[in-house]
Amino acid sequence: MKLATLRNGRPDGRLVVVSRDLARCAAADDIAPTLQAALDVWDDAAPRLAERAAAVEAGSATGVEPFDPGLAMAPLPRAYQWADGSAYVNHVALVRKARNADMPDSFWHDPLVYQGAADCNLGPMDPIPLADPELGCDFEGEIAVVTDRVPAGTDEEAAAAHIKLVMLVNDVTLRNLVAPEIGKGFGFFQSKPQTAFSPVAVTPDELGDAWDGARVHLRLRVHRGDVLFGAPEAGRDMVFSFPRLISHVARTRPIGPGGIIGSGTVSNADPAVGAACIAERRARDMLEFGEVRTLFLAPGERVRIEMLNDRGHSIFGAIDQVVARYV
Amino acid sequence: MKLATLRNGRPDGRLVVVSRDLARCAAADDIAPTLQAALDVWDDAAPRLAERAAAVEAGSATGVEPFDPGLAMAPLPRAYQWADGSAYVNHVALVRKARNADMPDSFWHDPLVYQGAADCNLGPMDPIPLADPELGCDFEGEIAVVTDRVPAGTDEEAAAAHIKLVMLVNDVTLRNLVAPEIGKGFGFFQSKPQTAFSPVAVTPDELGDAWDGARVHLRLRVHRGDVLFGAPEAGRDMVFSFPRLISHVARTRPIGPGGIIGSGTVSNADPAVGAACIAERRARDMLEFGEVRTLFLAPGERVRIEMLNDRGHSIFGAIDQVVARYV
Repeated sequence: MKLATLRNGRPDGRLVVVSRDLARCAAADDIAPTLQAALDVWDDAAPRLAERAAAVEAGSATGVEPFDPGLAMAPLPRAYQWADGSAYVNHVALVRKARNADMPDSFWHDPLVYQGAADCNLGPMDPIPLADPELGCDFEGEIAVVTDRVPAGTDEEAAAAHIKLVMLVNDVTLRNLVAPEIGKGFGFFQSKPQTAFSPVAVTPDELGDAWDGARVHLRLRVHRGDVLFGAPEAGRDMVFSFPRLISHVARTRPIGPGGIIGSGTVSNADPAVGAACIAERRARDMLEFGEVRTLFLAPGERVRIEMLNDRGHSIFGAIDQVVARYV
Repeated sequence: MKLATLRNGRPDGRLVVVSRDLARCAAADDIAPTLQAALDVWDDAAPRLAERAAAVEAGSATGVEPFDPGLAMAPLPRAYQWADGSAYVNHVALVRKARNADMPDSFWHDPLVYQGAADCNLGPMDPIPLADPELGCDFEGEIAVVTDRVPAGTDEEAAAAHIKLVMLVNDVTLRNLVAPEIGKGFGFFQSKPQTAFSPVAVTPDELGDAWDGARVHLRLRVHRGDVLFGAPEAGRDMVFSFPRLISHVARTRPIGPGGIIGSGTVSNADPAVGAACIAERRARDMLEFGEVRTLFLAPGERVRIEMLNDRGHSIFGAIDQVVARYV
């Protein structure tokens, strides 16, 4: 099934079930008022939501309305846990190589995860707020999974069963704030502003054979304006699987229901597929031309992140944002 | 007023108003079911909660029951934002000096804040779960404030008005995981397990003259077992005030209602006051004796963190936890 959250003037919006073709939706707030509320009691809520979704497909649901992604908030407009991995180690290696920095060999064996905040997530068509273009605004196309409660110490094998939903992410990053923050030793903070999510979150079965329980084997299509910036295959070169990332996050603490675990920027070793973020393209610029030729985002620019199934249909709907300057 | 959250089998518990002497409480879930719900509409909820609190003090409230901190969850059992500063720069300087590492001068001018997670906060008397004593389990006695919604770009002057509640914190840290994580460049992750909070959160007016709108001018009393481990004065040597920390957190993103902003380990330059965490005591061991003489926490050890007003009464109740090994 596919789930979305529509704006209703409240912080967590209202839960709807969306048709597989993303054309229609039906209220589900009688089952659970919000997606977080559904995730809090997922074993009870999921079968009832699935039943509603089947009724939407069959045309037998009541109160069906057109689904407008412009009215969608992030599926979880705010979440208690947002832990973002860097599972495509190739991306890290490339960016480091471009600035002549070594990457420890341990990065290939020990997952790199940063603690994000998700108190003010952006909807799929919300503008990307930018105070100052000099901050170096970048997009990062990613995949994320949503878990139920994961006990502390859950191993990789047991972690897979805790994956309940899959979404797309635009992990907006202010590149020119990254180096000074990393240098202070406490990780990212101001360099990670609000994160945007796809119009719908889907249960893994919606991915069919493209989901193997650990990775999504489809291309993530990232447009900058009208140009296809990159379309890396998300199942390839993902060194750490989602269950492995979850196990890493849960090593010393549980994950509460509704925890969001991100893949990090999707990236392939093959340069022909392009990149899912500007920083990677700039690293390739350096390696190819000895200089950076790709600029960060300017106000007014548009970013679109999407994933199509093998019949060319959008699975999650599109993250489709315009950079908007604010003062 | 003083607010607490009592266990009721649900993730966010139920909101109660607690008497000033912490002896009694009255249900407030008719005003807002949870503290997060109250913070979501604070301007509406706060006057009604204050009225209930006045009725509890006057003995005119109905349904008053004894307040048992053993039944309390964290005031926010889960929160969308937990950003923890390192405002007592003396602490950072001391720990670095003990390991012969320089501290950049910028640390005195630019706040150091790490992004924490607060999806599974511990109640004041919950055990500290510890899988392996070799991880180097430490307590950190801190103060935290809770905000309403803070717009992105809020400056220090405007930030003060967003402080709605004050709490105490035990920011449990696994010291032996810190160095490898910092070395990876993405900040703390597994080294920061679940955080514990005081039985009640109080509005700043409960602090009287000890609150100047920016700092709490009282001693934070930290016991390890029966021994007073430290009692630093929280208003002294706090280089970055709470409004300054909030402004730092909100530089590139808003803070959602119910954001928790921590001070970092309370620490004074004067060694006579002791320390609010073991790491600082170990740093002083190194400087005084050339060797570490203070061990990290072992299973069965007890930690108590409390703050008394000028008449010797506990303001927040005590964080009072025992380390419990789990497998």
